[in-house]
Amino acid sequence: MRNLKLVLSYDGSDFSGWQIQPGQRTVQQTLEQAILRLTGARVRVNASGRTDSGVHALGQVVNFHSATQLTCAVLRNGLNAYLPPDVVVCSVADVAEAFDANRDAQGKLYRYVIHAGEVPNPFLRRFCCQSRHRLDAAAMRRAAEVLQGRHDFHSFETEWPNRASSVRTVTHLSVSHMGDWIWLSVAADGFLYNMVRTIAGTLMNVGRGYWPESKVAEILHAEDRTQAGPTAPAQGLFLVRVTYDE
Amino acid sequence: MRNLKLVLSYDGSDFSGWQIQPGQRTVQQTLEQAILRLTGARVRVNASGRTDSGVHALGQVVNFHSATQLTCAVLRNGLNAYLPPDVVVCSVADVAEAFDANRDAQGKLYRYVIHAGEVPNPFLRRFCCQSRHRLDAAAMRRAAEVLQGRHDFHSFETEWPNRASSVRTVTHLSVSHMGDWIWLSVAADGFLYNMVRTIAGTLMNVGRGYWPESKVAEILHAEDRTQAGPTAPAQGLFLVRVTYDE
Repeated sequence: MRNLKLVLSYDGSDFSGWQIQPGQRTVQQTLEQAILRLTGARVRVNASGRTDSGVHALGQVVNFHSATQLTCAVLRNGLNAYLPPDVVVCSVADVAEAFDANRDAQGKLYRYVIHAGEVPNPFLRRFCCQSRHRLDAAAMRRAAEVLQGRHDFHSFETEWPNRASSVRTVTHLSVSHMGDWIWLSVAADGFLYNMVRTIAGTLMNVGRGYWPESKVAEILHAEDRTQAGPTAPAQGLFLVRVTYDE
Repeated sequence: MRNLKLVLSYDGSDFSGWQIQPGQRTVQQTLEQAILRLTGARVRVNASGRTDSGVHALGQVVNFHSATQLTCAVLRNGLNAYLPPDVVVCSVADVAEAFDANRDAQGKLYRYVIHAGEVPNPFLRRFCCQSRHRLDAAAMRRAAEVLQGRHDFHSFETEWPNRASSVRTVTHLSVSHMGDWIWLSVAADGFLYNMVRTIAGTLMNVGRGYWPESKVAEILHAEDRTQAGPTAPAQGLFLVRVTYDE
Protein backbone atom coordinates (compact mmCIF):
# COMPACT_ATOMS: atom_id res chain seq x y z
CA MET A 1 0.00 0.00 0.00
CA ARG A 2 1.15 3.51 -0.76
CA ASN A 3 0.76 6.34 1.73
CA LEU A 4 -0.25 9.45 -0.23
CA LYS A 5 -0.02 13.01 1.04
CA LEU A 6 -2.27 15.62 -0.57
CA VAL A 7 -2.23 19.38 -0.22
CA LEU A 8 -5.70 20.85 -0.76
CA SER A 9 -7.15 24.32 -1.28
CA TYR A 10 -10.83 24.93 -0.78
CA ASP A 11 -13.35 27.71 -0.73
CA GLY A 12 -15.20 26.80 2.47
CA SER A 13 -18.26 28.97 1.71
CA ASP A 14 -20.53 26.16 0.57
CA PHE A 15 -19.18 23.39 2.82
CA SER A 16 -20.32 22.39 6.29
CA GLY A 17 -16.67 22.22 7.27
CA TRP A 18 -14.15 19.43 6.81
CA GLN A 19 -15.55 16.47 8.69
CA ILE A 20 -18.13 14.01 7.36
CA GLN A 21 -21.59 14.58 8.78
CA PRO A 22 -24.71 12.78 7.57
CA GLY A 23 -26.72 14.87 5.10
CA GLN A 24 -24.15 17.67 4.94
CA ARG A 25 -21.82 18.67 2.11
CA THR A 26 -18.35 18.45 3.65
CA VAL A 27 -14.85 18.61 2.17
CA GLN A 28 -13.89 15.19 3.52
CA GLN A 29 -16.90 13.44 1.97
CA THR A 30 -16.35 15.30 -1.32
CA LEU A 31 -12.69 14.26 -1.46
CA GLU A 32 -13.37 10.65 -0.50
CA GLN A 33 -16.00 10.42 -3.24
CA ALA A 34 -13.54 11.76 -5.85
CA ILE A 35 -10.93 9.20 -4.72
CA LEU A 36 -13.53 6.43 -5.00
CA ARG A 37 -14.46 7.51 -8.53
CA LEU A 38 -10.82 7.76 -9.66
CA THR A 39 -9.30 4.70 -7.97
CA GLY A 40 -12.36 2.52 -7.36
CA ALA A 41 -11.41 2.23 -3.68
CA ARG A 42 -13.33 3.49 -0.69
CA VAL A 43 -10.81 5.15 1.63
CA ARG A 44 -10.85 7.25 4.77
CA VAL A 45 -8.70 10.37 4.48
CA ASN A 46 -6.87 11.75 7.49
CA ALA A 47 -6.51 15.55 7.68
CA SER A 48 -4.13 17.71 9.71
CA GLY A 49 -7.23 18.87 11.54
CA ARG A 50 -10.84 19.83 10.97
CA THR A 51 -11.84 23.17 9.59
CA ASP A 52 -15.22 24.54 10.61
CA SER A 53 -18.15 25.38 8.41
CA GLY A 54 -17.27 28.31 6.13
CA VAL A 55 -13.52 28.25 6.87
CA HIS A 56 -11.21 28.18 3.83
CA ALA A 57 -7.92 26.39 3.23
CA LEU A 58 -4.99 27.31 1.06
CA GLY A 59 -2.92 24.33 2.19
CA GLN A 60 -4.84 21.70 4.15
CA VAL A 61 -2.80 18.49 4.34
CA VAL A 62 -4.31 15.00 4.28
CA ASN A 63 -2.99 11.49 3.85
CA PHE A 64 -4.57 8.17 2.93
CA HIS A 65 -3.45 4.67 2.03
CA SER A 66 -4.07 3.35 -1.44
CA ALA A 67 -3.06 0.50 -3.73
CA THR A 68 -3.49 2.67 -6.84
CA GLN A 69 -0.80 2.44 -9.54
CA LEU A 70 -1.53 5.95 -10.86
CA THR A 71 1.36 8.41 -10.80
CA CYS A 72 1.13 11.41 -8.48
CA ALA A 73 0.57 13.79 -11.41
CA VAL A 74 -2.24 11.63 -12.80
CA LEU A 75 -3.79 11.37 -9.33
CA ARG A 76 -3.70 15.15 -8.93
CA ASN A 77 -5.20 15.89 -12.33
CA GLY A 78 -7.68 13.03 -12.10
CA LEU A 79 -8.94 14.10 -8.68
CA ASN A 80 -9.25 17.69 -9.88
CA ALA A 81 -11.35 16.46 -12.80
CA TYR A 82 -13.75 14.71 -10.38
CA LEU A 83 -13.77 17.37 -7.65
CA PRO A 84 -16.21 20.31 -7.77
CA PRO A 85 -14.54 23.69 -8.50
CA ASP A 86 -14.49 24.77 -4.84
CA VAL A 87 -11.94 22.08 -3.84
CA VAL A 88 -8.61 21.63 -5.58
CA VAL A 89 -5.75 19.18 -5.05
CA CYS A 90 -2.56 21.27 -5.31
CA SER A 91 -0.12 18.37 -5.01
CA VAL A 92 0.14 14.64 -4.41
CA ALA A 93 3.25 12.91 -3.07
CA ASP A 94 4.23 9.47 -1.85
CA VAL A 95 5.33 9.66 1.77
CA ALA A 96 6.73 7.26 4.35
CA GLU A 97 4.40 4.52 5.57
CA ALA A 98 4.36 6.05 9.05
CA PHE A 99 3.41 9.61 8.02
CA ASP A 100 0.19 10.78 9.69
CA ALA A 101 -1.07 14.21 8.58
CA ASN A 102 -2.82 14.79 11.90
CA ARG A 103 -0.45 13.36 14.48
CA ASP A 104 2.76 14.54 12.80
CA ALA A 105 1.71 18.18 12.29
CA GLN A 106 4.32 20.35 14.02
CA GLY A 107 2.54 23.62 13.52
CA LYS A 108 -0.01 25.49 11.46
CA LEU A 109 -0.34 28.94 10.00
CA TYR A 110 -3.76 30.56 9.87
CA ARG A 111 -4.68 33.90 8.32
CA TYR A 112 -7.69 36.02 9.23
CA VAL A 113 -8.71 38.61 6.62
CA ILE A 114 -10.69 41.75 7.49
CA HIS A 115 -12.02 44.39 5.12
CA ALA A 116 -12.51 47.68 6.93
CA GLY A 117 -13.40 50.02 4.07
CA GLU A 118 -16.45 52.24 3.96
CA VAL A 119 -17.61 50.42 0.86
CA PRO A 120 -17.76 46.60 0.95
CA ASN A 121 -15.87 44.62 -1.70
CA PRO A 122 -18.28 42.58 -3.87
CA PHE A 123 -15.59 40.25 -5.23
CA LEU A 124 -13.93 39.16 -2.02
CA ARG A 125 -17.03 39.22 0.19
CA ARG A 126 -16.86 35.43 0.73
CA PHE A 127 -13.21 35.62 1.79
CA CYS A 128 -13.14 38.26 4.49
CA CYS A 129 -14.92 39.63 7.50
CA GLN A 130 -16.49 42.97 6.63
CA SER A 131 -15.96 45.35 9.56
CA ARG A 132 -18.61 48.00 10.11
CA HIS A 133 -15.99 50.14 11.85
CA ARG A 134 -12.72 51.73 10.78
CA LEU A 135 -9.91 49.79 12.44
CA ASP A 136 -6.57 51.05 13.75
CA ALA A 137 -4.16 48.38 12.51
CA ALA A 138 -1.21 49.80 14.49
CA ALA A 139 -3.17 49.51 17.75
CA MET A 140 -4.16 45.94 16.86
CA ARG A 141 -0.52 45.12 16.14
CA ARG A 142 0.68 46.47 19.49
CA ALA A 143 -2.15 44.77 21.36
CA ALA A 144 -1.36 41.42 19.71
CA GLU A 145 2.24 41.31 20.95
CA VAL A 146 1.30 39.91 24.36
CA LEU A 147 -0.22 36.81 22.72
CA GLN A 148 3.08 35.64 21.27
CA GLY A 149 4.86 32.81 23.06
CA ARG A 150 3.69 30.02 25.36
CA HIS A 151 0.46 30.78 27.25
CA ASP A 152 -2.73 29.23 28.50
CA PHE A 153 -5.16 30.41 25.79
CA HIS A 154 -8.28 29.28 27.64
CA SER A 155 -9.78 32.79 27.23
CA PHE A 156 -9.55 32.34 23.46
CA GLU A 157 -11.21 28.94 23.04
CA THR A 158 -14.78 27.89 22.66
CA GLU A 159 -15.23 25.15 25.29
CA TRP A 160 -14.45 21.70 24.00
CA PRO A 161 -15.36 18.89 26.38
CA ASN A 162 -12.31 16.62 26.20
CA ARG A 163 -9.56 19.18 26.08
CA ALA A 164 -6.67 18.33 28.37
CA SER A 165 -4.75 21.57 28.22
CA SER A 166 -5.23 24.98 26.64
CA VAL A 167 -1.53 25.79 26.71
CA ARG A 168 -0.20 26.53 23.23
CA THR A 169 2.86 28.27 21.79
CA VAL A 170 2.16 31.06 19.33
CA THR A 171 5.37 31.25 17.29
CA HIS A 172 4.29 34.15 15.08
CA LEU A 173 1.47 36.68 15.24
CA SER A 174 1.49 39.62 12.84
CA VAL A 175 -1.08 42.23 11.89
CA SER A 176 -0.62 43.43 8.30
CA HIS A 177 -2.37 46.31 6.66
CA MET A 178 -2.79 47.62 3.12
CA GLY A 179 -5.46 50.08 2.10
CA ASP A 180 -8.81 48.93 3.50
CA TRP A 181 -7.45 45.44 4.24
CA ILE A 182 -6.10 44.09 7.51
CA TRP A 183 -4.98 40.50 7.97
CA LEU A 184 -3.72 38.59 10.96
CA SER A 185 -1.23 35.76 10.51
CA VAL A 186 -1.03 33.37 13.44
CA ALA A 187 1.36 30.42 13.60
CA ALA A 188 1.34 28.02 16.56
CA ASP A 189 2.22 24.49 17.51
CA GLY A 190 -1.50 23.83 17.80
CA PHE A 191 -4.79 25.69 17.94
CA LEU A 192 -7.74 25.51 20.29
CA TYR A 193 -11.30 25.48 19.02
CA ASN A 194 -12.13 28.92 17.52
CA MET A 195 -8.81 30.32 18.80
CA VAL A 196 -7.90 32.43 15.75
CA ARG A 197 -11.46 33.70 15.34
CA THR A 198 -11.57 34.72 19.01
CA ILE A 199 -8.20 36.47 18.74
CA ALA A 200 -9.53 38.26 15.63
CA GLY A 201 -12.75 39.33 17.37
CA THR A 202 -10.76 40.57 20.36
CA LEU A 203 -8.25 42.54 18.28
CA MET A 204 -11.08 44.06 16.23
CA ASN A 205 -12.57 45.42 19.48
CA VAL A 206 -9.21 47.06 20.13
CA GLY A 207 -8.88 48.29 16.54
CA ARG A 208 -12.22 50.10 16.60
CA GLY A 209 -11.29 51.79 19.89
CA TYR A 210 -13.88 49.93 21.97
CA TRP A 211 -11.15 48.43 24.19
CA PRO A 212 -7.70 49.78 25.18
CA GLU A 213 -4.67 47.85 23.93
CA SER A 214 -3.86 46.70 27.47
CA LYS A 215 -7.15 44.81 27.65
CA VAL A 216 -5.69 41.90 25.64
CA ALA A 217 -3.18 41.04 28.38
CA GLU A 218 -5.98 41.16 30.97
CA ILE A 219 -8.08 38.79 28.88
CA LEU A 220 -5.17 36.38 28.40
CA HIS A 221 -4.41 36.25 32.13
CA ALA A 222 -8.08 35.90 33.13
CA GLU A 223 -8.25 32.44 31.44
CA ASP A 224 -11.95 33.09 30.98
CA ARG A 225 -13.63 33.02 27.57
CA THR A 226 -16.32 35.50 28.61
CA GLN A 227 -13.66 38.21 28.89
CA ALA A 228 -12.57 38.00 25.23
CA GLY A 229 -14.22 39.51 22.17
CA PRO A 230 -16.73 37.76 19.91
CA THR A 231 -15.80 34.82 17.68
CA ALA A 232 -15.20 36.56 14.34
CA PRO A 233 -17.05 35.08 11.32
CA ALA A 234 -15.71 31.90 9.70
CA GLN A 235 -15.54 33.39 6.21
CA GLY A 236 -12.45 35.49 7.05
CA LEU A 237 -10.38 32.48 8.16
CA PHE A 238 -7.87 30.56 6.03
CA LEU A 239 -5.74 27.56 7.00
CA VAL A 240 -2.62 28.62 5.10
CA ARG A 241 -0.23 25.76 5.72
CA VAL A 242 0.69 22.88 7.97
CA THR A 243 4.33 22.18 8.79
CA TYR A 244 5.94 18.80 9.36
CA ASP A 245 9.42 17.59 10.27
CA GLU A 246 10.39 16.20 6.91
CA MET B 1 -33.88 67.91 -9.97
CA ARG B 2 -30.37 66.70 -9.22
CA ASN B 3 -28.33 64.70 -11.69
CA LEU B 4 -26.46 62.01 -9.74
CA LYS B 5 -23.47 60.07 -11.00
CA LEU B 6 -22.73 56.69 -9.39
CA VAL B 7 -19.70 54.47 -9.75
CA LEU B 8 -20.61 50.80 -9.22
CA SER B 9 -18.71 47.55 -8.70
CA TYR B 10 -20.43 44.25 -9.23
CA ASP B 11 -19.73 40.55 -9.28
CA GLY B 12 -21.56 39.64 -12.49
CA SER B 13 -21.65 35.89 -11.74
CA ASP B 14 -25.27 35.76 -10.62
CA PHE B 15 -26.66 38.51 -12.85
CA SER B 16 -28.14 38.20 -16.34
CA GLY B 17 -26.07 41.24 -17.28
CA TRP B 18 -26.80 44.92 -16.83
CA GLN B 19 -29.98 45.59 -18.71
CA ILE B 20 -33.50 45.01 -17.41
CA GLN B 21 -35.14 41.90 -18.85
CA PRO B 22 -38.46 40.48 -17.66
CA GLY B 23 -38.02 37.62 -15.21
CA GLN B 24 -34.23 37.99 -15.01
CA ARG B 25 -32.03 39.25 -12.17
CA THR B 26 -30.12 42.16 -13.70
CA VAL B 27 -27.88 44.83 -12.20
CA GLN B 28 -30.03 47.67 -13.54
CA GLN B 29 -33.25 46.30 -12.01
CA THR B 30 -31.45 45.61 -8.71
CA LEU B 31 -30.08 49.17 -8.56
CA GLU B 32 -33.38 50.80 -9.53
CA GLN B 33 -35.14 48.81 -6.80
CA ALA B 34 -32.61 49.97 -4.16
CA ILE B 35 -33.08 53.60 -5.30
CA LEU B 36 -36.87 53.18 -5.04
CA ARG B 37 -36.58 51.80 -1.51
CA LEU B 38 -34.19 54.53 -0.37
CA THR B 39 -35.71 57.59 -2.05
CA GLY B 40 -39.29 56.46 -2.69
CA ALA B 41 -38.96 57.40 -6.35
CA ARG B 42 -39.08 55.13 -9.35
CA VAL B 43 -36.24 56.14 -11.65
CA ARG B 44 -34.57 54.88 -14.80
CA VAL B 45 -30.78 54.71 -14.48
CA ASN B 46 -28.55 55.35 -17.48
CA ALA B 47 -25.30 53.37 -17.66
CA SER B 48 -22.14 53.97 -19.67
CA GLY B 49 -23.08 50.80 -21.51
CA ARG B 50 -24.48 47.34 -20.95
CA THR B 51 -22.41 44.53 -19.60
CA ASP B 52 -23.33 41.01 -20.65
CA SER B 53 -24.44 38.16 -18.45
CA GLY B 54 -21.58 37.09 -16.16
CA VAL B 55 -19.36 40.12 -16.89
CA HIS B 56 -18.04 42.00 -13.83
CA ALA B 57 -17.50 45.70 -13.22
CA LEU B 58 -15.01 47.49 -11.03
CA GLY B 59 -16.13 50.94 -12.15
CA GLN B 60 -19.38 50.99 -14.11
CA VAL B 61 -20.75 54.56 -14.30
CA VAL B 62 -24.44 55.43 -14.26
CA ASN B 63 -26.45 58.59 -13.83
CA PHE B 64 -30.06 59.33 -12.92
CA HIS B 65 -32.20 62.32 -12.03
CA SER B 66 -33.63 62.60 -8.55
CA ALA B 67 -35.33 65.09 -6.27
CA THR B 68 -33.85 63.47 -3.15
CA GLN B 69 -32.44 65.74 -0.43
CA LEU B 70 -30.06 63.05 0.89
CA THR B 71 -26.36 63.90 0.84
CA CYS B 72 -24.09 61.93 -1.47
CA ALA B 73 -22.52 60.03 1.47
CA VAL B 74 -25.95 59.06 2.83
CA LEU B 75 -27.08 58.00 -0.63
CA ARG B 76 -24.01 55.79 -1.04
CA ASN B 77 -24.34 54.13 2.36
CA GLY B 78 -28.11 53.87 2.12
CA LEU B 79 -28.00 52.24 -1.31
CA ASN B 80 -25.32 49.83 -0.12
CA ALA B 81 -27.57 48.86 2.79
CA TYR B 82 -30.41 48.01 0.36
CA LEU B 83 -28.27 46.41 -2.36
CA PRO B 84 -27.37 42.71 -2.26
CA PRO B 85 -23.68 41.99 -1.51
CA ASP B 86 -22.77 41.41 -5.17
CA VAL B 87 -23.39 45.05 -6.16
CA VAL B 88 -21.77 47.99 -4.42
CA VAL B 89 -22.00 51.75 -4.93
CA CYS B 90 -18.42 53.04 -4.65
CA SER B 91 -19.25 56.74 -4.94
CA VAL B 92 -22.08 59.18 -5.53
CA ALA B 93 -21.60 62.73 -6.87
CA ASP B 94 -23.76 65.59 -8.08
CA VAL B 95 -22.93 66.34 -11.70
CA ALA B 96 -24.01 68.92 -14.28
CA GLU B 97 -27.60 68.69 -15.50
CA ALA B 98 -26.37 67.76 -18.99
CA PHE B 99 -24.11 64.85 -17.96
CA ASP B 100 -25.09 61.59 -19.63
CA ALA B 101 -23.10 58.52 -18.53
CA ASN B 102 -23.69 56.77 -21.85
CA ARG B 103 -23.41 59.54 -24.44
CA ASP B 104 -20.52 61.39 -22.73
CA ALA B 105 -18.25 58.37 -22.22
CA GLN B 106 -14.95 59.16 -23.94
CA GLY B 107 -13.41 55.76 -23.44
CA LYS B 108 -13.45 52.58 -21.41
CA LEU B 109 -10.90 50.25 -19.95
CA TYR B 110 -11.65 46.53 -19.85
CA ARG B 111 -9.54 43.80 -18.31
CA TYR B 112 -9.64 40.12 -19.23
CA VAL B 113 -8.19 37.74 -16.62
CA ILE B 114 -6.87 34.27 -17.50
CA HIS B 115 -5.59 31.62 -15.13
CA ALA B 116 -3.22 29.24 -16.93
CA GLY B 117 -1.91 27.13 -14.07
CA GLU B 118 -1.98 23.35 -13.93
CA VAL B 119 -4.14 23.51 -10.82
CA PRO B 120 -7.28 25.68 -10.93
CA ASN B 121 -7.75 28.38 -8.27
CA PRO B 122 -10.83 27.67 -6.12
CA PHE B 123 -11.09 31.22 -4.76
CA LEU B 124 -10.94 33.21 -7.98
CA ARG B 125 -12.73 30.70 -10.19
CA ARG B 126 -15.65 33.09 -10.76
CA PHE B 127 -13.32 35.91 -11.80
CA CYS B 128 -11.15 34.40 -14.50
CA CYS B 129 -11.11 32.17 -17.53
CA GLN B 130 -9.39 28.90 -16.67
CA SER B 131 -7.16 27.90 -19.60
CA ARG B 132 -6.62 24.18 -20.16
CA HIS B 133 -3.32 25.01 -21.86
CA ARG B 134 -0.10 26.67 -20.78
CA LEU B 135 0.03 30.10 -22.45
CA ASP B 136 3.05 32.01 -23.74
CA ALA B 137 2.36 35.54 -22.49
CA ALA B 138 5.26 37.06 -24.44
CA ALA B 139 3.87 35.67 -27.72
CA MET B 140 0.41 37.02 -26.84
CA ARG B 141 1.95 40.41 -26.10
CA ARG B 142 3.77 40.58 -29.44
CA ALA B 143 0.71 39.34 -31.33
CA ALA B 144 -1.51 41.98 -29.68
CA GLU B 145 0.57 44.92 -30.90
CA VAL B 146 -1.09 45.04 -34.31
CA LEU B 147 -4.49 45.67 -32.68
CA GLN B 148 -3.45 49.00 -31.20
CA GLY B 149 -4.66 52.13 -32.99
CA ARG B 150 -7.57 52.87 -35.28
CA HIS B 151 -8.90 49.86 -37.19
CA ASP B 152 -12.05 48.26 -38.46
CA PHE B 153 -12.57 45.58 -35.78
CA HIS B 154 -15.34 43.77 -37.65
CA SER B 155 -13.44 40.47 -37.24
CA PHE B 156 -13.69 40.90 -33.48
CA GLU B 157 -17.40 41.62 -33.06
CA THR B 158 -20.38 39.40 -32.72
CA GLU B 159 -22.84 40.70 -35.34
CA TRP B 160 -25.14 43.38 -34.05
CA PRO B 161 -27.95 44.34 -36.43
CA ASN B 162 -27.93 48.14 -36.25
CA ARG B 163 -24.21 48.81 -36.10
CA ALA B 164 -23.15 51.67 -38.37
CA SER B 165 -19.39 51.23 -38.20
CA SER B 166 -16.96 48.80 -36.64
CA VAL B 167 -14.07 51.26 -36.68
CA ARG B 168 -12.71 51.88 -33.20
CA THR B 169 -9.49 53.25 -31.72
CA VAL B 170 -7.67 51.01 -29.26
CA THR B 171 -5.59 53.46 -27.22
CA HIS B 172 -3.94 50.82 -25.02
CA LEU B 173 -3.59 47.05 -25.19
CA SER B 174 -1.24 45.30 -22.79
CA VAL B 175 -0.70 41.69 -21.83
CA SER B 176 0.52 41.32 -18.24
CA HIS B 177 1.78 38.18 -16.61
CA MET B 178 2.55 37.05 -13.07
CA GLY B 179 2.91 33.42 -12.05
CA ASP B 180 -0.03 31.46 -13.48
CA TRP B 181 -2.00 34.63 -14.23
CA ILE B 182 -2.24 36.54 -17.49
CA TRP B 183 -4.43 39.57 -17.96
CA LEU B 184 -5.20 41.75 -20.94
CA SER B 185 -5.97 45.43 -20.47
CA VAL B 186 -7.75 47.05 -23.39
CA ALA B 187 -8.68 50.73 -23.54
CA ALA B 188 -10.59 52.17 -26.49
CA ASP B 189 -12.90 55.01 -27.46
CA GLY B 190 -15.66 52.43 -27.76
CA PHE B 191 -16.14 48.68 -27.91
CA LEU B 192 -18.05 46.44 -30.30
CA TYR B 193 -20.21 43.61 -29.04
CA ASN B 194 -17.97 40.86 -27.56
CA MET B 195 -14.85 42.67 -28.80
CA VAL B 196 -12.64 42.13 -25.74
CA ARG B 197 -13.75 38.52 -25.35
CA THR B 198 -13.00 37.83 -29.04
CA ILE B 199 -9.58 39.48 -28.75
CA ALA B 200 -8.94 37.33 -25.63
CA GLY B 201 -10.03 34.12 -27.39
CA THR B 202 -7.81 34.97 -30.36
CA LEU B 203 -4.75 35.79 -28.28
CA MET B 204 -5.23 32.61 -26.25
CA ASN B 205 -5.05 30.62 -29.49
CA VAL B 206 -1.70 32.31 -30.12
CA GLY B 207 -0.54 31.82 -26.53
CA ARG B 208 -1.09 28.07 -26.61
CA GLY B 209 0.81 27.82 -29.90
CA TYR B 210 -2.22 26.88 -32.01
CA TRP B 211 -1.76 29.96 -34.22
CA PRO B 212 1.39 31.93 -35.20
CA GLU B 213 1.66 35.48 -33.91
CA SER B 214 1.24 36.84 -37.46
CA LYS B 215 -2.26 35.35 -37.65
CA VAL B 216 -3.70 38.26 -35.62
CA ALA B 217 -2.87 40.80 -38.36
CA GLU B 218 -4.46 38.51 -40.95
CA ILE B 219 -7.62 38.24 -38.88
CA LEU B 220 -7.80 42.01 -38.38
CA HIS B 221 -7.43 42.70 -42.11
CA ALA B 222 -9.90 40.01 -43.12
CA GLU B 223 -12.78 41.93 -41.45
CA ASP B 224 -14.49 38.58 -41.02
CA ARG B 225 -15.59 37.25 -37.61
CA THR B 226 -15.20 33.63 -38.67
CA GLN B 227 -11.42 34.13 -38.94
CA ALA B 228 -10.96 35.10 -35.26
CA GLY B 229 -10.75 32.88 -32.19
CA PRO B 230 -13.67 31.88 -29.96
CA THR B 231 -15.46 34.38 -27.72
CA ALA B 232 -13.72 33.81 -24.37
CA PRO B 233 -16.02 33.21 -21.35
CA ALA B 234 -17.75 36.19 -19.72
CA GLN B 235 -16.46 35.42 -16.23
CA GLY B 236 -12.93 36.64 -17.06
CA LEU B 237 -14.10 40.10 -18.16
CA PHE B 238 -14.14 43.25 -16.01
CA LEU B 239 -15.25 46.75 -16.98
CA VAL B 240 -12.53 48.61 -15.07
CA ARG B 241 -13.38 52.24 -15.69
CA VAL B 242 -15.13 54.72 -17.92
CA THR B 243 -13.49 58.04 -18.72
CA TYR B 244 -15.23 61.37 -19.28
CA ASP B 245 -14.13 64.88 -20.20
CA GLU B 246 -14.69 66.50 -16.83
